[in-house]
Parts: sequence; structure tokens; C-alpha cells
Amino acid sequence: MKLIIAIVQSEYAKRLQSAFVDNNVGATKLASTGGFLREGNTTFLLGVEDEDVDGVLKLIEEHSQTREETINPGIHPGISFEQPIEPVNITVGGATVFVLPVDQSLHF
Amino acid sequence: MKLIIAIVQSEYAKRLQSAFVDNNVGATKLASTGGFLREGNTTFLLGVEDEDVDGVLKLIEEHSQTREETINPGIHPGISFEQPIEPVNITVGGATVFVLPVDQSLHF
Amino acid sequence: MKLIIAIVQSEYAKRLQSAFVDNNVGATKLASTGGFLREGNTTFLLGVEDEDVDGVLKLIEEHSQTREETINPGIHPGISFEQPIEPVNITVGGATVFVLPVDQSLHF
Ligand code: NI
Ligand code: NI
Ligand code: NI
Repeated sequence: MKLIIAIVQSEYAKRLQSAFVDNNVGATKLASTGGFLREGNTTFLLGVEDEDVDGVLKLIEEHSQTREETINPGIHPGISFEQPIEPVNITVGGATVFVLPVDQSLHF
Repeated sequence: MKLIIAIVQSEYAKRLQSAFVDNNVGATKLASTGGFLREGNTTFLLGVEDEDVDGVLKLIEEHSQTREETINPGIHPGISFEQPIEPVNITVGGATVFVLPVDQSLHF
Repeated sequence: MKLIIAIVQSEYAKRLQSAFVDNNVGATKLASTGGFLREGNTTFLLGVEDEDVDGVLKLIEEHSQTREETINPGIHPGISFEQPIEPVNITVGGATVFVLPVDQSLHF
């Protein structure tokens, strides 16, 4: 048995949660926020049998793909800049996942 | 030292939390929700000395017993069904518990 | 790789979070409350390389020092006591920290 802790952007949490339900993977959702002023994120706790770990990791990967997004930092109503500010590409989404060893797993 | 993660239905969380206090077991409560559209649940984190693990597990078991409940899926105001729908028994309550190894435990 | 779980009083969480950002330590913040009727606290999850664990622990220690505070339990508007109640010293702040082994750490 392993405990998988998956931290995903809240934007993708609903989709990933549906995937867990569809694949009969029990998951507990914790409210969380990122440490780098990023948007809210969601932390899932999953108790997974050793032989299912790879499958669950694949599921998480498939449903939390990053994507590139172009934002235009120069467009802020009421603020003007002396020099034009170029649009920048940022990476959105992604997941941080930890697989932890478990000594005992119980269900009462 | 072990880290016990106990996920219980919120309905039972207050009772369990009181039991932790009565038994001098330090517990941190995280807000969480179940992955299967179940009611809200509560996740407790407990740092427990090796020799106290069994006692704390017993405490959790005693205070998070499941019970059978009969629900009547046919009774929804404004919705009628062509065939009568039988009441069904569902299991309510219970706890999912993980005991994790700890490399270091510190208190500042 | 280790997973550090740090539980600190919410009062200190903002300061500690800033320290994580300043030191480029990725942290996920979970909403949590203490088990002993204490004020709200905050739980941080941090994935840390083995060689960085001591530095991060030092960072947490420096930013979550306890302090003594004197509270006067006798002053409650509208409640009178037959005997004078002495002010008591309580310890405020501090952090409870667990360092957990990690089998796998992934970023998608
Ligand atoms: Ni899907
Ligand atoms: Ni009891
Ligand atoms: Ni500082």
C-alpha cells in the first residue's frame, strides 16, 4: 500500500476527481493553496495498492497536463507604461505528486 | 514516531476530536471532502509514538463505527417514478486510516 | 527526497510563507485547525531534496518561534468570580514538523 499525495491546480481538480471516480480510485480532497501566489490548488490523498501505483500516476498525468498560455502584462486598465511590455508565455497546470510508503492501512 | 492520517466522515469528526482531547492525543484537523460525492469528511493528522499507535487506532475505531441506514430513493418531491423504488441500505460512517513512517519529528 | 509536513499557528503562517518564497522553497498550504481548541493553524506540505532538509527545518524554526504571553483569565465581561484568578503564562506559537520518507516524487 502507498499513499499518493497529488497537488494539482484547482482548475484541473474537478476533471481529475471525475477520472478517479470513473476508475474507482478512492480519493480525499483537501483544500489548499499554492506557496508562490499561484491560483488555488487542490491536494488529493489516495491510498493505492502497490500494483496500482503506476496506473494511478498515469491517470494523474493524463488529467493534469500543463499548457502554455500567453498573458499580456501591459494591459492593466488605468496603468500606463513608458515602454511597451511584451506578452509573456507562462506554464499553466501541472501536478506535483509524492508517493509515500505506508506501514499500515486500515478501514474501520 | 508515526504519522497517522485518519479520514472520517465530518458527522463523526467532533466526537473523535473530543476523544483525542480526552486522551491527550494531539491532532491537527484538515478540511476535506470525499472523492465519491459523499458528504464532507475530515482528515486528522496525528504524530504518535510507536508504542501508542495501537491505542490511538483503537480510539479511532471506537469513535468511527459504521452503521447501516435505510434510505428511500423514491421519495423526491415533484418527481414520480413509473415503478416503485425499493428502500436501500447504505453504510454510513467509518474511517480510512494510514500509518506512515516518520524520519524525524520536531517541535519548535 | 523528503516530504516535510509543518503545522504552524496561522498567526505565523504568512511570515513563514514569505520566507519559503524568499528562499525559493515550494510549499503547499492546507487549511487546518488545532485539536486542542487552539486558534486556527496552517499545515504546509514541502517536497525537499535530502540535502536541503536541514536548511528548510532551520527556516521553519527561525520563523515560528514560541513566545510567552500572559493572559488574565479573570477578565470576562459580565462574569464575576468569588476568588481572584491569577494571570497565567501560556506559550504561543511554535511548530510541529514531520519529515517523511518519499518513495517517488513526480512533476507532471
Ligand atoms: Ni478522463
Ligand atoms: Ni468516547
Ligand atoms: Ni525571514
